[in-house]
This record gives sequence, structure tokens and C-alpha cells, in this order.
Amino acid sequence: MGNKQLTIGMFGFGNVGRGLYDVLNTISSKEAIIKRVCVRDITKQRGVKIDFTDNADDIFADKDINLIVELIDDAEAAYHIVKRALQSGLSVVSGNKKMLAHHLPELIELQREHNVALLYDASACGSIPVIRNLEEYYDNDLLVSVKGILNGSSNFILSKIFNENYSYDVALRRAQELGFAESDPTLDIGGWDSLFKLIIITVHAFGCYVSPEKIFTYGISSMNDNDIRFANEKERRYKLVAHVEKLDNGKIIMSVMPQLISRDKYIYSVEDEFNGVVIKGKFYDKQFMFGRGAGGHPTGSAVLSDIMACFYNYRYEYKRMIGRTPVEYTDDVLVRVYLRYSNAEDRALFEFASIEEQYVSDDYKYLVGHISLANLHRISAQIRERDLFIAAYPTK
Amino acid sequence: MGNKQLTIGMFGFGNVGRGLYDVLNTISSKEAIIKRVCVRDITKQRGVKIDFTDNADDIFADKDINLIVELIDDAEAAYHIVKRALQSGLSVVSGNKKMLAHHLPELIELQREHNVALLYDASACGSIPVIRNLEEYYDNDLLVSVKGILNGSSNFILSKIFNENYSYDVALRRAQELGFAESDPTLDIGGWDSLFKLIIITVHAFGCYVSPEKIFTYGISSMNDNDIRFANEKERRYKLVAHVEKLDNGKIIMSVMPQLISRDKYIYSVEDEFNGVVIKGKFYDKQFMFGRGAGGHPTGSAVLSDIMACFYNYRYEYKRMIGRTPVEYTDDVLVRVYLRYSNAEDRALFEFASIEEQYVSDDYKYLVGHISLANLHRISAQIRERDLFIAAYPTK
Repeated sequence: MGNKQLTIGMFGFGNVGRGLYDVLNTISSKEAIIKRVCVRDITKQRGVKIDFTDNADDIFADKDINLIVELIDDAEAAYHIVKRALQSGLSVVSGNKKMLAHHLPELIELQREHNVALLYDASACGSIPVIRNLEEYYDNDLLVSVKGILNGSSNFILSKIFNENYSYDVALRRAQELGFAESDPTLDIGGWDSLFKLIIITVHAFGCYVSPEKIFTYGISSMNDNDIRFANEKERRYKLVAHVEKLDNGKIIMSVMPQLISRDKYIYSVEDEFNGVVIKGKFYDKQFMFGRGAGGHPTGSAVLSDIMACFYNYRYEYKRMIGRTPVEYTDDVLVRVYLRYSNAEDRALFEFASIEEQYVSDDYKYLVGHISLANLHRISAQIRERDLFIAAYPTK
Repeated sequence: MGNKQLTIGMFGFGNVGRGLYDVLNTISSKEAIIKRVCVRDITKQRGVKIDFTDNADDIFADKDINLIVELIDDAEAAYHIVKRALQSGLSVVSGNKKMLAHHLPELIELQREHNVALLYDASACGSIPVIRNLEEYYDNDLLVSVKGILNGSSNFILSKIFNENYSYDVALRRAQELGFAESDPTLDIGGWDSLFKLIIITVHAFGCYVSPEKIFTYGISSMNDNDIRFANEKERRYKLVAHVEKLDNGKIIMSVMPQLISRDKYIYSVEDEFNGVVIKGKFYDKQFMFGRGAGGHPTGSAVLSDIMACFYNYRYEYKRMIGRTPVEYTDDVLVRVYLRYSNAEDRALFEFASIEEQYVSDDYKYLVGHISLANLHRISAQIRERDLFIAAYPTK
């Protein structure tokens, strides 16, 4: 095949980096070896025989290294590493969704300019190959929507609260102990991690890049016992759902928010740290992909898949993006929601188009109605601070 | 990209062919057009504006045609069409699993010899992109097993029997009315259709071609009320499961047979005409893919995905097969089974290694025990004729 061996310069040796190291060791890969790893703290004992450095220049100066694998937490630092690598003519495998979600247009341009690949399937759903499937398999014109549970940590917390009556704090601590949570847990429970993944997925699903600040994003942290009781009464469960859908007018809508999911939906049964993605098309109806979305070894083996794809000279072609009329993003659409609020002032922030159901008592007030995504987006910063909770509540 | 438009010469205009026609029409594809279709009965009214012929030579003589799409029922005829096309330097998309399962080694060789592609993702699981995922994403060395419900028709029948108390005959007739069943239903309910798909999947999963007659294949047609009662008592359901697994000794085992599935398994909830595949790996644990495995439109859009892959010059690389030590097939392994039998003579065919449970009454006799796959394979032709039923019965 004439594919040359990959000599990897790696950045970061956290949970996923360690996972990749273990996986590569187990299969004793001939296609790829890790030559050097750049870490922040070079004095830390890691118990592995690897050449560590704390100077990025050591990696870039090494002429043997022909692939950069970037697995660090800091999005800003990751951006500079990836950019520098691409500009130096090196292909890159990255797992940093936050960085990708903010810089994809530029990084796509850099790939083309320098004729190198940037692969990041591992960034979107841990071990589920959703990006490559969207890129390679699903015809854009037939694709209707992608909807999923993209964050293992928040889903783990919701599962523990609903199925095992954990308190929110205990559930979060348990997720952190198990290594599912991001080092900053607000990324998980605030919906940001899901948002970043949704942005990456949308680029490959609909050829449309929408920057993070344009999308309504709302997490699970303010959910309380009344909200949980409401879900149980309706025989539904909250799931933190990331959603992109093409409307009949050709525009796409996107959102990340808790959703009251009924029992007959695929994602109802996605429990614990698992991820699940439902891809809906005009003719093939729905496809469901399910797997581990977090954890060092599952994500590490997803990174390995990206590395192997590099070995076979695979590149994303961004087929839906290049040479097509750009798809437009809109938030001009009504969503049916459940809103629990505590006072009239908070309530007044929400401009409902219609209200179906209202309940008011001293310690619990809620309503069910339709509201535009644009309105939710406009007030999103304010409502995050308040004693209220909002979730999408589809009629079925 | 410089990809040239695909001008398709098609063979067959049945359920899937018609589905493909509809899908192509809906998206008004610029990348691919159907120029001519070869059918058996040219006089049949089909209500579409297509140039039909009943002479294969008309297709092969047409210099505009640069892609053959083969969607006919007859495996022998399909083989000759596909072989002729590849030898003429034409790439081919085929949905004929029976033909592929019998001739893959030769067809792989022909692709290489004539530098053309033969794509057949549509053949294995309708709309689930299982082959391309195995080929592209899962690293062979990490792959442990692929297990799935690969036949929509038999699964539909099992669902109707278990959930809606249909009789076997009514369920089969309903499947045929809905267009899920093969024209010869024994292919579905005898497990043959699943077997052919399993053979194709195994080539891409483990780089190993095993011919159909070597693999124990047993269907659902002799299941009776006692068997159903047994499953219900154990809180399990029969599913017709195709299974390939790599043993610790590096050899692979394969089988197609009904299996008593417990509630906590992914495939337990795969109902009706749906297919579901569980891919298990060393590090990523289990992945589950789920979707429509039958029907004209879902399969038609899978064929379209293969066509689009041709447009982008995609070819299977048979990475696990080429340049690697061949993986060996074995049936020297014990399986835990449930066997219902009616007389001592039939019972004597089975050489159990161990028996855990026996029940004997006038109208119902069964046992649970371990038996080698080799023994089952040896007697498979005989047991198909008898009043007995056997299903795998894993301990959990």
C-alpha cells in the first residue's frame, strides 16, 4: 500500500491520552508509535516508558514525527498547537471539541491550504463513529435531523437521579470519580460539551457551521424535585438532548436543552455514561447508534481509529459544505416547553406564543406552552441564573 | 473534484430497484442517473419513464454507461452480470447477498485485477452502514465479535408472534404483503439470508471468507407453542441471531440460529422489520447500530449511498484480508442450547457434552445443555426435517 508508519508527537497525557497509550500497547501496533508526549507537568510520575517533554518546540523540531495527536484540555492552547501543526504540513488527530467548535472554518481552510488532514471523530461521541458516518454514508439531501445524547457525564447524572434516587451532588461526584466528567463540570451539565459536539456534527451533516453563541444552550443543573415529579407523572424522563433539524423551508434549527422523552423513543433507554444518536432521513426513516461516549479506553480507541484513518490517507471531504449553496441557520421556530418558575418577574422573561397548561401553588408554579427558540436564545444568559427550569416537551 | 457523472445501467426493477428510482427522483441527483434497466418481463406496466430492455447486451454495449447496479433476485444470473461487468472494467453496486456470499473471493480478485470497485453495503443490513463501518472504523485487532439480527422478515414474524399472538402463517403472510420477505420465504425464515449477510460481514470484520456450507444455520420455522411458553417463562424472547466471534485462540466461530435473548440485551428490543447489530471490541465495549433492514425505500437509499461512494471513487480495501495471516475458522466450541424434541431417535442425533436440565412429558420433552457447534453442523440437514426445535440459550 505504500503507507508510511506514523510516528506520533502527542500533546496531553490525561484520561484519553493514557487510554490511547494502553490501546496502542495492547495491539502492539506496527502502523503507529508514540515517540514523544508534551505535558504541562513533566515531573509527574506516570509509570510509563515514554519520552516526555514540557516544550512544544521539542515535538515540532523532531523530523521523525509525522502526525500530531492533540488530547489536552485547554481549548486555546489546543488551537495554537493544531494550527501550528497544520501550517507545518503535519496531519493532526484532535479530541478537543471546544476548540473545534470555535475554529472549524479556519481549520478546514488550513487543511486545504496545506494539503493535510485534521481528523476528530473521537471528539464527537467517544466511540460512536458518527462524524465519519455522516460524512461518508448519509446523503445530505435525504438527511432530516440528527438528535442525540452527546454527553456521557450529564446522562450518567440524570440516570442516577432518575433510576437510583441519587442526589444531584452525589451523582456528579460519582461521575467525576469514574472519569466521565470534564475537568470543568459546568461544560457537561451546562450543555456546552453537547453544544460543541452538535456544532461539529452539523458541519458534517448539513455542511453548515454555526458558532456556539448563536445556539440556545441550557443544561440540567437547576432541575429540582418538582421537575422530576412532573416527568414521572407523565411517564417521561429528562435527557439532555442536542438537536439539529432541517425544516421544510431548507433552513436548519439547532438547540441543546433538557427534553422530556417518552418511553417509545430510542434515546429514552440510553442510560448512564452512554451516548446515543438518532439520524433521521427521508427514506431510511431512523437509524440509531449507541455506544460508550466517554471514558479513557473507549475514547482512546476512537482516537486510534482516527490515527488508522490517517495511516490510510483518509481525509474528511466536507462534501456538504464545499461547492454547495450554504444552508441557513434560523431560530425562528416554536418549541413546546415545560417551564417551572418561582416568581412573576422570571415568568415575564418568557414570551409564550401560546399556553396550554398552567399550574400555580405556593411552592410550585409551571406552565406548558409554545415559545420561539429565538426568544429562548435571547434570554438564555439571564435564565441560567434564576430559580427556574425549562425543558422541551414534545407532544409525543 | 473532477468526479464524473455516473450513468447507470441497472439490472432488476423489483422492490429495491423501484425504491432506488424513487429516491433518485426525489433528490433529483446530478451525480447519478439511471439510463437503462434490464428486466425479465419487458411487457410489464411499471408506470415509470425509463428505457427498459430484456437483453443484457444492450446495457453492456452502451458506452455511456459507467456503473452497473445489480438488484435482481436470481443469484446465479447476478453472478454472471457482476463478473461480466467487472471484467469489462465497470464498477458495480450489488445488493445480492446470496451471490456475494458464494463468490466473494473471486469477486475481490476481479476488482483488483481490473481496478474497479464492487460495493455492496446495501446487501448486508438494509440501511445500516455496517460493512463500511467495519471496513473503515473498527480496528481488526480490537474487534471481538459481531452479533445481530440481520433479517427483517423473520424478525417481523417473531415480533408478531411474541407481541401480538399472531400465528406463524398469518405473520409470514403479513411480512410478504408489506414487502419485507424475500420472494422465497425459506431464505428468511430458514436463516439463509442472515447467513449470507454474516459471511459478507465476516470478510470485512475479520478478513476471513468462510463458505456457506461450513456454517451451522438453523431457522425459526419449527418453533411451536411449547417453545414460546418456555421463552416466556424465562422472560426471554427468541431472536434469529447471526454471530461471528474471535476466540482467545485467534480462531473465529460463526453460526446462525434462534437464540433465547434476555431483556437486558440490546437486541432484545429490536422489533418488527428492524435490524440491529452489536459490535464488540476490546476497549470500546459494545456498539449498537439499529435501523430498517428491509423495505424498498430504506434499501434503495442504502444502494444510493453505495452509488454516491462510487462517485467519490470509494473502494473497499479489504484491509483485514490482504497482507495478513489468514484467520482460521473453527466450529470446535461448545454452545449452551435449549432443545425440544419429540422422540428418542431424534434425540439421539445430538451428542451433548453435558446436560443441565431435562423435562419429559407426553406432549413436551426438552433439555438444556452444552453441545459442540461441530455436532450441530454435522446433523443440520437432518434436524431441519424433524419435529424438534433448537435455540442457543446463553446463561445470561
